[in-house]
Amino acid sequence: MALSANLLMPLQKRLGHQFSELSLLKQALTHRSADSQHNERLEYLGDAVLGMVIAEALYQKFPDHAEGDLSRMRSTLVRGKTLAEIGREFDLGSVVRLGPGEMKSGGHRRESILADAVEAIIGAVFLDAGIEAAKKMLLNWYSERLTTISPIALKDAKTRLQEYLQGRQLNLPDYAVTDTRGQAHNQTFTVSCQVQGMASVVAKGTSRRKAEQAAAEMVINALNAEGAKI
Amino acid sequence: MALSANLLMPLQKRLGHQFSELSLLKQALTHRSADSQHNERLEYLGDAVLGMVIAEALYQKFPDHAEGDLSRMRSTLVRGKTLAEIGREFDLGSVVRLGPGEMKSGGHRRESILADAVEAIIGAVFLDAGIEAAKKMLLNWYSERLTTISPIALKDAKTRLQEYLQGRQLNLPDYAVTDTRGQAHNQTFTVSCQVQGMASVVAKGTSRRKAEQAAAEMVINALNAEGAKI
Repeated sequence: MALSANLLMPLQKRLGHQFSELSLLKQALTHRSADSQHNERLEYLGDAVLGMVIAEALYQKFPDHAEGDLSRMRSTLVRGKTLAEIGREFDLGSVVRLGPGEMKSGGHRRESILADAVEAIIGAVFLDAGIEAAKKMLLNWYSERLTTISPIALKDAKTRLQEYLQGRQLNLPDYAVTDTRGQAHNQTFTVSCQVQGMASVVAKGTSRRKAEQAAAEMVINALNAEGAKI
Repeated sequence: MALSANLLMPLQKRLGHQFSELSLLKQALTHRSADSQHNERLEYLGDAVLGMVIAEALYQKFPDHAEGDLSRMRSTLVRGKTLAEIGREFDLGSVVRLGPGEMKSGGHRRESILADAVEAIIGAVFLDAGIEAAKKMLLNWYSERLTTISPIALKDAKTRLQEYLQGRQLNLPDYAVTDTRGQAHNQTFTVSCQVQGMASVVAKGTSRRKAEQAAAEMVINALNAEGAKI
């Protein structure tokens, strides 16, 4: 599938950026399965640009919040799920170039292809017109999300892991207390967390809840290290 | 300890940035143990600015390298160890404001306080003069490191974990194969990795080496999630 001007014109309108170098946009929409000139390097760049723009926006919007709150909100705004939503808002699914093997892929693969294309587009805009243009566009894309996000009510690790697994029709994690040490108000709980298809993980905490959250966080880190973007 | 102009003048010269708002630099040099106006929010911002500037510099310098190589080099350039080195080059140890409890802290704590102050200074410069000024300064700071870095010879997870633990006088990790499945050329190895003071971690791989690397990576992720910056 070639990307014709007929397709790219309305897309640029939706994105809010008119490219000087249209080849950058084409590359951003090219999955590695489709062509050797694919979007992975642009995705790497876009991820960093997005991270900075959102970091600054939250810094300015929440002058009284600690670094931890800002970091959590940033994670929420830049994670794969949010990026895939944005990709759907721009109807990227209809313009992303995929190789024959990927054409039929659905669900999770599809989500991550959309999220990666969104990051690649950000990288492409940055190369095409610089950081200020990329920032202006991103603040537009995120204007509603930045208005509604709040430091409270962010989801904890167990919830995020559960939702991730449910979205992929996998079994829920199996948490089990494997050890308890210490006395009444100074206990250490050891909890194992088993996720379908993964080696089990063990974590400690001063309460069962904390140990479970820590274990879920470890599983999320391991999945993210493999590109899951939870 | 107040930060006098006598101290801040030569520091600004070393950093290569003259602040319009000197209070930003003062805040960047203030650890949370010293004052409620501390540097954690600036550190959060500086981390994002640094990430973007280094991401772009590597993108431009290595036009033929894949995203994975660029990401690994970026991790090396922005990790705590590198930032602490930069902090020592600027002699930040003599100007960082610490609370009484932290004054005596040595080793690891000291390293991470320096690294955090470096990130906070980056955030402060960004607020003081914008992204282009911050970028120019950072490319100066990193000019030698960006010249010498190469996608090969980056350290693997086991090596990084070992060096981290040695630097803290902790025992080396204990790796053990707990299970082997499958036949000759299609085996799955399960390896446990036990680090002093942490719950053990279990990982799988198609070779013992890969399983050990995966386990080391999980431990590193868990330590980084607690702020270790390995």
